[in-house]
Amino acid sequence: MSDGELDVLAGAGERVPAHLADALRGLGLIDHHVHGCFTEAIDRARFEDCLNEGSPEPMPGFMTQFDSQIGFAIRRWCAPLVGAPPLVDANGYWAARSALAPAELNARMLRAAGVEHWVIDTGFQGGTISGLDRMAEESGAPASEILRLETMAEELMRRDTAPGDFADAFRAALVEALPRIVGVKTICAYRCGFDIDWRRPADEEVVRAVAAWIARDGENPRLDDPLLAAFLVHAAAELGLPIQIHVGFGDRDLDLHRTNPMLLLGLLREPSIARSSIMLLHCYPYHREAGYLAQAFANVYYDIGLAINYVGARAPHVVAEALELGPFAKQLYSSDAFGVPEFHLLGSTLWRRSMGLVLGRWVADGDWSESDAIRVARMIGADNARRAYGLG
Amino acid sequence: MSDGELDVLAGAGERVPAHLADALRGLGLIDHHVHGCFTEAIDRARFEDCLNEGSPEPMPGFMTQFDSQIGFAIRRWCAPLVGAPPLVDANGYWAARSALAPAELNARMLRAAGVEHWVIDTGFQGGTISGLDRMAEESGAPASEILRLETMAEELMRRDTAPGDFADAFRAALVEALPRIVGVKTICAYRCGFDIDWRRPADEEVVRAVAAWIARDGENPRLDDPLLAAFLVHAAAELGLPIQIHVGFGDRDLDLHRTNPMLLLGLLREPSIARSSIMLLHCYPYHREAGYLAQAFANVYYDIGLAINYVGARAPHVVAEALELGPFAKQLYSSDAFGVPEFHLLGSTLWRRSMGLVLGRWVADGDWSESDAIRVARMIGADNARRAYGLG
Amino acid sequence: MSDGELDVLAGAGERVPAHLADALRGLGLIDHHVHGCFTEAIDRARFEDCLNEGSPEPMPGFMTQFDSQIGFAIRRWCAPLVGAPPLVDANGYWAARSALAPAELNARMLRAAGVEHWVIDTGFQGGTISGLDRMAEESGAPASEILRLETMAEELMRRDTAPGDFADAFRAALVEALPRIVGVKTICAYRCGFDIDWRRPADEEVVRAVAAWIARDGENPRLDDPLLAAFLVHAAAELGLPIQIHVGFGDRDLDLHRTNPMLLLGLLREPSIARSSIMLLHCYPYHREAGYLAQAFANVYYDIGLAINYVGARAPHVVAEALELGPFAKQLYSSDAFGVPEFHLLGSTLWRRSMGLVLGRWVADGDWSESDAIRVARMIGADNARRAYGLG
Repeated sequence: MSDGELDVLAGAGERVPAHLADALRGLGLIDHHVHGCFTEAIDRARFEDCLNEGSPEPMPGFMTQFDSQIGFAIRRWCAPLVGAPPLVDANGYWAARSALAPAELNARMLRAAGVEHWVIDTGFQGGTISGLDRMAEESGAPASEILRLETMAEELMRRDTAPGDFADAFRAALVEALPRIVGVKTICAYRCGFDIDWRRPADEEVVRAVAAWIARDGENPRLDDPLLAAFLVHAAAELGLPIQIHVGFGDRDLDLHRTNPMLLLGLLREPSIARSSIMLLHCYPYHREAGYLAQAFANVYYDIGLAINYVGARAPHVVAEALELGPFAKQLYSSDAFGVPEFHLLGSTLWRRSMGLVLGRWVADGDWSESDAIRVARMIGADNARRAYGLG
Repeated sequence: MSDGELDVLAGAGERVPAHLADALRGLGLIDHHVHGCFTEAIDRARFEDCLNEGSPEPMPGFMTQFDSQIGFAIRRWCAPLVGAPPLVDANGYWAARSALAPAELNARMLRAAGVEHWVIDTGFQGGTISGLDRMAEESGAPASEILRLETMAEELMRRDTAPGDFADAFRAALVEALPRIVGVKTICAYRCGFDIDWRRPADEEVVRAVAAWIARDGENPRLDDPLLAAFLVHAAAELGLPIQIHVGFGDRDLDLHRTNPMLLLGLLREPSIARSSIMLLHCYPYHREAGYLAQAFANVYYDIGLAINYVGARAPHVVAEALELGPFAKQLYSSDAFGVPEFHLLGSTLWRRSMGLVLGRWVADGDWSESDAIRVARMIGADNARRAYGLG
Repeated sequence: MSDGELDVLAGAGERVPAHLADALRGLGLIDHHVHGCFTEAIDRARFEDCLNEGSPEPMPGFMTQFDSQIGFAIRRWCAPLVGAPPLVDANGYWAARSALAPAELNARMLRAAGVEHWVIDTGFQGGTISGLDRMAEESGAPASEILRLETMAEELMRRDTAPGDFADAFRAALVEALPRIVGVKTICAYRCGFDIDWRRPADEEVVRAVAAWIARDGENPRLDDPLLAAFLVHAAAELGLPIQIHVGFGDRDLDLHRTNPMLLLGLLREPSIARSSIMLLHCYPYHREAGYLAQAFANVYYDIGLAINYVGARAPHVVAEALELGPFAKQLYSSDAFGVPEFHLLGSTLWRRSMGLVLGRWVADGDWSESDAIRVARMIGADNARRAYGLG
């Protein structure tokens, strides 16, 4: 964390033991699920849209998206980075932010996030946001790639892959990608939900499903067939790749209750999946269920990324709820930031602050030792991801 | 709030910043979902029944309903209004309360609630509880009406409306009610649950459904046909009326899990609904889901009424959970009080106290500014409802 | 609680009013759902397996199960009982524990738990753990028996009971067991989940289901037929016996979401069930739903056993969540400890501590009186179970 500008434990200092506070301020995080930053300036309407994950609609005229936990958190924690006082009002924040060029803004926020390694999902809106190289350059930290399974499958379709060739072409493309990626991600939550048949499909079933898909979607393919969703995941599992799964909170295109991670039991019980680490992303409001699955399955990990940003001042409570059943070796840190670099910073800031308040309370009460608290913070903040993804 | 008798921040004073505390004590609330008060004295058995929302059964002999969070909260917060000390025992409370005539009791509790506008559901047990005029008179604050859709539909049936006339008759009755109502309410949660086909039914489908309904129920009609439930809501939406929907906590006639607001996605995605404000009522234990929907849909509002009363000392935690994803312009205050005027007071008291403790903590920690806290309290306590219902 | 060795309110003393603290330290608990202790020494791998309820897999090599809330809680609260300092590291704890013979270990932990009556489920792995007599002897407190319905039914099958005789044989066996048991338990959560037809099956349906069961399972019968699950419960209800139902948290053999207690509505609404007390066990993460059902049905009780142990430092929050809708006369205490005597102690310790912190806060804030807090602690800790099971 950069000194002077931002103290993630401001106003909470006396409640966090000193060594734990130091460790949390200085911890180099691995943000295991994140996206790039906008490379061009955006206008205020676009910015406010970014403060609402759930809705694709224009904001109602009677309100501003700043009037939300995430809006307040940005005014509190990001204002110092743009030269404005903490909790400056929305107009003041916007004015100060707008005075900075995108590259400068990105660099300030990304560096202040104290992330030592970004693990980036490159499969969404790649054109408008920074790629691996630019993220690494602007942040001063290395970046690794996560391949989005549906994006690659849809690309194969756009290249007129024949139904009979699809399964092999997909597997070959995965193998070809292996040297440059550290894992894959599925967004089947947005396509068919989790309550599907998760058994490994036979190749002839894939042929039929692809043929039907082509017949339906033509040149604008959108993979939402459950059988193909299962095929993609099994193909990645055959290579033993870490598999990220979008779970819970997201925009309203998904049926939130159909992304309850308990509905993944059919997949998790498949013996052929056991070699892959399964990363449950976000999970809110099903993070207790995710913690349970991380206890019940040796290969399941989880995070509460995105949710932390959106609940703002409530982050300590959500962080605490995520510290119930899940073994400490199985939780990961992520921001799931996209586009707006405030989110990269906010994820880091709210997580460090929340861990300080939550673990600090337990240390003060004698429930945990301070050295345990530091160790667990390092496990969740970096060590678990380093091990699970095999990072440097 | 009346001074001297009741300080909603008693025992928590030093944890709530002074201006926020003043604002919360003095805020004139809009109780956007509430019922009238009993006009006649009730006996203790009836009173205790009112302390249990879930059960229609007689209370087991081994217990008193006073031994619950709501019972303790009444003894704590309502006792001073009947001239008894805070936390007087149950018998003492009952004795002090019984010494007051219903009109006096109602007036004391209603006025102490500090509500400046009541928005009253008149569709349930109208005969035994006070109507708009009496509520206004006893409380000294104006009252507006919410029309219960199922009640009006069942009344049409009792007047022998022919199946072929029902749709038009219902729409005409709604139009006729327009000048005197500010919105409508559906209790389909109690009739068919939310997991139904929410598309707008064609009029000929309505004809068939009404005919089947008459054949089944005869002179004692109870509307529980899903198609008719959808018809009622769409009819109200065509007029752009605010639509209240009972969600979650209620008596065991409903299947709680079938009133998860996520099951309303089919309705909320209907383009023809977008013009109406949709008010999700109660929501517990699905208030996090409700906050998500309020973010995801520009026309969705939510409250945690009724639940606040029933969880008593836990109200601050439930209030805090409701302050996660939902934009602050989309949450409303309600007590959902019915019959017993203690509930009208308790909703107000526990909400003010909880907001003081929760927002006060954030202000003390530097997460929120005090002026933001006051502004958000006013939005949720009154401004949002005033705007959404178009009240004075 | 034994003095000197273990103070359940250590580090929290000033936050718990003195009389409440004394009452909680000295309260003789009824542990209404618990199992025996291992009678032989176990190795560390087995011990660590016991720290993971969810998974039947071997622990991954990269972690220790001690790195979890339950692991930290054992190091914190059980270490003094084996002569090690609080929060001794895992190796140190294991070394100190291993120096004690099983009988000595059991006696120390069981006596320090301060339980005055054990209500023991004898239907699981009876051979490896202590029975009623040994539990009573090692703990110095009496033990009563809960009969596991599925275990008894499967035993009848192994004795070649004919399909046509099964229903009567089962009922007769229940009657025969009556003098020695205080209730029964069903683990249908593990067999078919709750979303089944809960109506009382006719005897001829039972005949057919048993015949099909024999044909399928042969000499290794496992009762998972929904109709037979319902038959077992109805047979117990006919005798008016208290019926324990495993709900929620358990190993991954169950589909957690299919053990949501709301799915028991069909059973709870059966009039023939009303005479039996229904005890919802564990309930996490559905403890709010369980509290609702305890309000909605006069005969429903609930506990948060097992979960308290597994969430460790988070126990106060889970205890608090369980104190929302459920009437105080309807909540019970249990540890659901199995095998490892640390769990018998931990349940008691974390419950006492959590009640002290949660109720103490409410007393300090003036929400509850201290005498009410003491009374509610005694109701949940012992009185409710004494009444519901008709114990001494």
